[in-house]
Amino acid sequence: MTARAVVLLSGGLDSATVLAIARAEGFECHALSVRYGQRHDAELDAAVRVAAALGAHEHRVIGVDLGAIGGSALTDPSIPVPTAPTEGIPVTYVPARNTVLLSLALGFAEVAGAHTLFIGVNAVDYSGYPDCRPAFIDAFERLATLATKAGVEGAPFAVRAPLIRSSKAEIIRRGLALGVDYALTVSCYRADADGRACGECDACRIRARGFRDAGVPDPTRYHRGAGGGCSAGGLRL
Amino acid sequence: MTARAVVLLSGGLDSATVLAIARAEGFECHALSVRYGQRHDAELDAAVRVAAALGAHEHRVIGVDLGAIGGSALTDPSIPVPTAPTEGIPVTYVPARNTVLLSLALGFAEVAGAHTLFIGVNAVDYSGYPDCRPAFIDAFERLATLATKAGVEGAPFAVRAPLIRSSKAEIIRRGLALGVDYALTVSCYRADADGRACGECDACRIRARGFRDAGVPDPTRYHRGAGGGCSAGGLRL
Repeated sequence: MTARAVVLLSGGLDSATVLAIARAEGFECHALSVRYGQRHDAELDAAVRVAAALGAHEHRVIGVDLGAIGGSALTDPSIPVPTAPTEGIPVTYVPARNTVLLSLALGFAEVAGAHTLFIGVNAVDYSGYPDCRPAFIDAFERLATLATKAGVEGAPFAVRAPLIRSSKAEIIRRGLALGVDYALTVSCYRADADGRACGECDACRIRARGFRDAGVPDPTRYHRGAGGGCSAGGLRL
Repeated sequence: MTARAVVLLSGGLDSATVLAIARAEGFECHALSVRYGQRHDAELDAAVRVAAALGAHEHRVIGVDLGAIGGSALTDPSIPVPTAPTEGIPVTYVPARNTVLLSLALGFAEVAGAHTLFIGVNAVDYSGYPDCRPAFIDAFERLATLATKAGVEGAPFAVRAPLIRSSKAEIIRRGLALGVDYALTVSCYRADADGRACGECDACRIRARGFRDAGVPDPTRYHRGAGGGCSAGGLRL
C-alpha cells in the first residue's frame, strides 16, 4: 500500500515545495489547509490551485477562529502589518500557530490513516518565530505518537520539515527542479483578493530576496503600484 | 501580580472541578471553551454558566471545525453514539482532540500573559482515550515551552491536569468541597438542547456511577424517558 502523508498547505512558496517533495518520495498526499482568521482568502485560493497542480490525493480546509484570541497582526485587524524589518519576534507571529496547525494535521492523519506529517517551516528565513525551530518539530513528533490511537497501537508518527535548514534560494531551486509553478503561490501577508502581493511586508521581502539569490525570474504578481521584486531590492532585505 | 492561568472548560463535571481548583489556588482564570463540531451546544451553554458561577476572569469560545475531518461519533453525524460499553478506544474518541484543545489554550495563554494551562483530563475513568494519559500531558508541557514566544524568552509553561489520577467519585467530592454546583454541568454525549442527559452513553454511565460511589445526590437532569441515575445503575457501569 502506498504510504500516506498529511501535508500542511498554506498556499505559499514553502508548503508548495514540501508537497512536491512528499509527492516525489511517493507519498499519497492528503493536503490540509487551515483558515485561521487570515485577513483574506487569497492564500487559500492558492492552496487549492497548488494541491491540484501537484497531484494531491485530496485537499481539505479546516476553519479555526484564532481571531477569537487575537494577539497577531495576521488575525487582529487592529494591529497593522509592518512594512519594514523589526527586531525580535514580529507582530505577525500568530500565537501557537504551528502547534495548532500540526494538531489539526495530526487529527486528519488519524482519520486518513497517515503516519507522516509534512510542514514547510524554515529556521533560516524564519523571521524569528519560535515554532519554526528543529527542537519544536522534534517535540511535536514525540507528542504525536503519545497523543493518538495509532501511536498507542504501535505506529509512531513522523513529523517531516524538509526545508527547515534551507535558505529561501535553496527551497526555490529545489521546487523548480520538482516542477513547482511558483506563479500559483501567494506569500504576501497583505495580498489583495486576486492574490497580488504588496512587495513590502516581511513575507514579500524574504520571497523576493529568495528569487534574486536563486538567480531565477520571480513570477510574483504585485499590486498595481506595489514595489515588486526590483524595487523591493531597494529595501533592507 | 496575580498569576494567570488558562482553564479549558467544556461545561462538563471534570473541567468545572478544575476551574474551582485553579480559583482556590489563587489563579486569575481565563476560561476557554472550544466549539469543535459537537452535535449540540448544551455543553457550551453549561460552560458559560460554570465560568460565571466560579468567578472566571473571562471566558472565550473558539470555533474549530473538526467535523471537516470527521472520524468520531461526536463530530460525524453518520456515526452513532454507543449506548453500551465497548472494548478498546471508543468511537466517541475525537482524533487528536486534547492536542488541539491544548494548542488553542496555549495560543490564548500567550495573548493573556498566562504561563499555566489547566485541563480536566482523567486517566482513571478515561474511557481509553490515549490523550488523557500523564505521558501525553508531560509531552505537551515540553512542547509548549519550545513553541512559544514566552518560552523562548525564559518563561516555561506548566500544564496542570489535577484530576488525572482521581476517580470520578474523588473528583465529585473535591468539587463539592470547593463549592461546585454540578447541576450547572452537562456531561452527556447526547444531551438535548436544554442540557438534559440521556442516561445511557459512556459519559452518562461514568458520571452516574461517580455520584453513586461518592455517596452524594446526583443533580443530573435526564430526558423525559431517559434511564437516569438509578436505572443507569442496572447497566454494566
